Amino acid sequence: MSDHERNGDTTHDARSTGADSANDRRRLDRRSLLRRGGAGAGLAALAACGGSSGNGAGPAVHTRQRVSWMLTSSFPSALDAMFGSAQLLARRLKEMSDGAFVVSVHQPGEYVPPFEVLDALQDGTVQVGHTASYYYKGKVEALAFDTCVPFGLAPRQQQAWLHQGGGRELIAEIYAQFGVLAFPGGNTGVQMGGWFRDPVESVADLKGLRMRIPGFGGDVMQALGVSVQNMPGGEIYTSLETARIDATEWVGPYDDEKLGFYKAVENYYFPGWWEPGPELTFMVDRARFEALPSAFRSMFEVAVREAAAHMQQVYDAQNPAALKRLVDAGVQVRPFTQDLMREARTATEDMLSSKAAADPTYARILEPWRAFRTRSNAWFRGAELAYANFAYPLD
Amino acid sequence: MSDHERNGDTTHDARSTGADSANDRRRLDRRSLLRRGGAGAGLAALAACGGSSGNGAGPAVHTRQRVSWMLTSSFPSALDAMFGSAQLLARRLKEMSDGAFVVSVHQPGEYVPPFEVLDALQDGTVQVGHTASYYYKGKVEALAFDTCVPFGLAPRQQQAWLHQGGGRELIAEIYAQFGVLAFPGGNTGVQMGGWFRDPVESVADLKGLRMRIPGFGGDVMQALGVSVQNMPGGEIYTSLETARIDATEWVGPYDDEKLGFYKAVENYYFPGWWEPGPELTFMVDRARFEALPSAFRSMFEVAVREAAAHMQQVYDAQNPAALKRLVDAGVQVRPFTQDLMREARTATEDMLSSKAAADPTYARILEPWRAFRTRSNAWFRGAELAYANFAYPLD
Repeated sequence: MSDHERNGDTTHDARSTGADSANDRRRLDRRSLLRRGGAGAGLAALAACGGSSGNGAGPAVHTRQRVSWMLTSSFPSALDAMFGSAQLLARRLKEMSDGAFVVSVHQPGEYVPPFEVLDALQDGTVQVGHTASYYYKGKVEALAFDTCVPFGLAPRQQQAWLHQGGGRELIAEIYAQFGVLAFPGGNTGVQMGGWFRDPVESVADLKGLRMRIPGFGGDVMQALGVSVQNMPGGEIYTSLETARIDATEWVGPYDDEKLGFYKAVENYYFPGWWEPGPELTFMVDRARFEALPSAFRSMFEVAVREAAAHMQQVYDAQNPAALKRLVDAGVQVRPFTQDLMREARTATEDMLSSKAAADPTYARILEPWRAFRTRSNAWFRGAELAYANFAYPLD
Repeated sequence: MSDHERNGDTTHDARSTGADSANDRRRLDRRSLLRRGGAGAGLAALAACGGSSGNGAGPAVHTRQRVSWMLTSSFPSALDAMFGSAQLLARRLKEMSDGAFVVSVHQPGEYVPPFEVLDALQDGTVQVGHTASYYYKGKVEALAFDTCVPFGLAPRQQQAWLHQGGGRELIAEIYAQFGVLAFPGGNTGVQMGGWFRDPVESVADLKGLRMRIPGFGGDVMQALGVSVQNMPGGEIYTSLETARIDATEWVGPYDDEKLGFYKAVENYYFPGWWEPGPELTFMVDRARFEALPSAFRSMFEVAVREAAAHMQQVYDAQNPAALKRLVDAGVQVRPFTQDLMREARTATEDMLSSKAAADPTYARILEPWRAFRTRSNAWFRGAELAYANFAYPLD
């Protein structure tokens, strides 16, 4: 962990956030004991030093603040398009700051469990997270809009909504209560619908099907008769192979191939209408962010944009080759029927409306989000869709 | 021009590229005389100074290089999604460098004509350009692949090809002979097919049609019988209104609305199959870039990624509202027929093959590009297209 070693060189300075940093260390030590008992985490706390304090120059002119942050990811390094985008963020911050703004990137479980990133930011275990907002809909259900909802926005629509359509501002209002800033953090593209032992020709075929599908998608599947199963990612393959489940969804060819589902079942459905354009999220401790030098704030804002674009481009370049390998291995790629999707959409829209009726925060996002979706669909169905249908027609 | 005023404060330093900078000034003075006769351009040359030379500190430790560059855009400020992305780049470089890396952003004609950006980089008039590589296919025809070719890659495919599919490396080989580095610089999305006085129901309706359509798209239209007209952007509206032309293409609703074509003719066709995912390009003087401090190189690389993503998101958010306004104003939005597009595609593929047969540089890109397109289409026709067709069906 070379970042930590180097962090050990930094010295503290009363002009800086050193006092705060001492508190961080105590908190980190506590968390380390609670979670892992490891040494070294304390060294990764925010550290600020006079970059040239040894040579007698005036400190007001020559001090260069040093920042060392920890980032925890919800995604293991094997999901390299996702994990790699956090690594790219860290590399760029280091490069742009001449090594003064260092972020160490950690896999889930190393310091923080995969779905506790928001908690870890709040209690100061880490300063940055790379995660998906819909993991935290148990806290505030409307956070799902920051990632995706079934039959929601496709990837470019989701990014346009977040960055240019008022989405980020609505999501920021929610995260304010957690002391967290959220930055769009990369899109997988429209996901696949997952792996099924037997073909699914109609909604009737879903009745009683044991499928691993978490979240809102699982709620919709349950409304269609599916027996929804939840289990950690590491147990899915065995469950599929031993027929404890009949189906599972994951991401898309590039990631799914690694988990080997195609060795257990052969029917690979599309599209994943419950995850039509999921955008991950970089989360930052707001107080720490606002205490950064303005140049570092700007570096962070810019570098997360690159990281997000990078992730999409990796998926868009890698999925085609992975799909071809899967097909060559005998996988049957099949579309969900229009009937199935229509029933699923009806169930989804009813659920969206019900949630909004019960929850003003949800309603506050749903209404403008639906208006954006309607306008955006009316544009994308034109030049974009007509070109796609001509250039790469679906048989 | 406050950037220029501030540049006047910088001082030169023999350790730096000051000698080179003096040459730049001479060149700039010459260009200024040739092109505009303006003062001030000389001040914008690369300038490097000891940031703290006045206080006696050791220069090896305390020097902060200052860089002032000029960027010329091919796109006027009225095309604010395009021009604004260059402004965003400049703002971010200034923020991230605490004001040490300054790029002044200039409209076409201010120092450099719109389609002479590559020349202006070569002769040192500017250090950065924001343009489209296909404007320079008169120099090397294969540069068109850096932007788009008819029936080529859709926007996400084009970005995946450039960043993750080997595209940038192939384009870089061409630009190396010009001493220029190229960075993908923003996508408009699939463009519209343009404005037609009368409906175009078949290929027969194209015979003799006087249409303003430049470049490769114009070549294909000519093969289909169109009488291709070329004229500057500023003359199109009048030519359309006075019936000197029957049709024109431009970009998409957000930009086309500003030029008022809908006041002259009412048929607005889609898709613009000759520009299915055009990516603009930021170009940089390679020697200047390589002489930058490594942190500034990284800032530039990261900030162009944000600028590119930003441009796409502005178009994706603004086109829907612009399209609605046009429809409300009586515009008839119509699809090109499948027959017309099939004939155009056949002509295009023949031209691509002919160009490659005559030009090894072209062939060197065409072959892997076609392979990428085939693989990518086989993926995008699945989950992405099936979701789009369900979520926003074309009637």
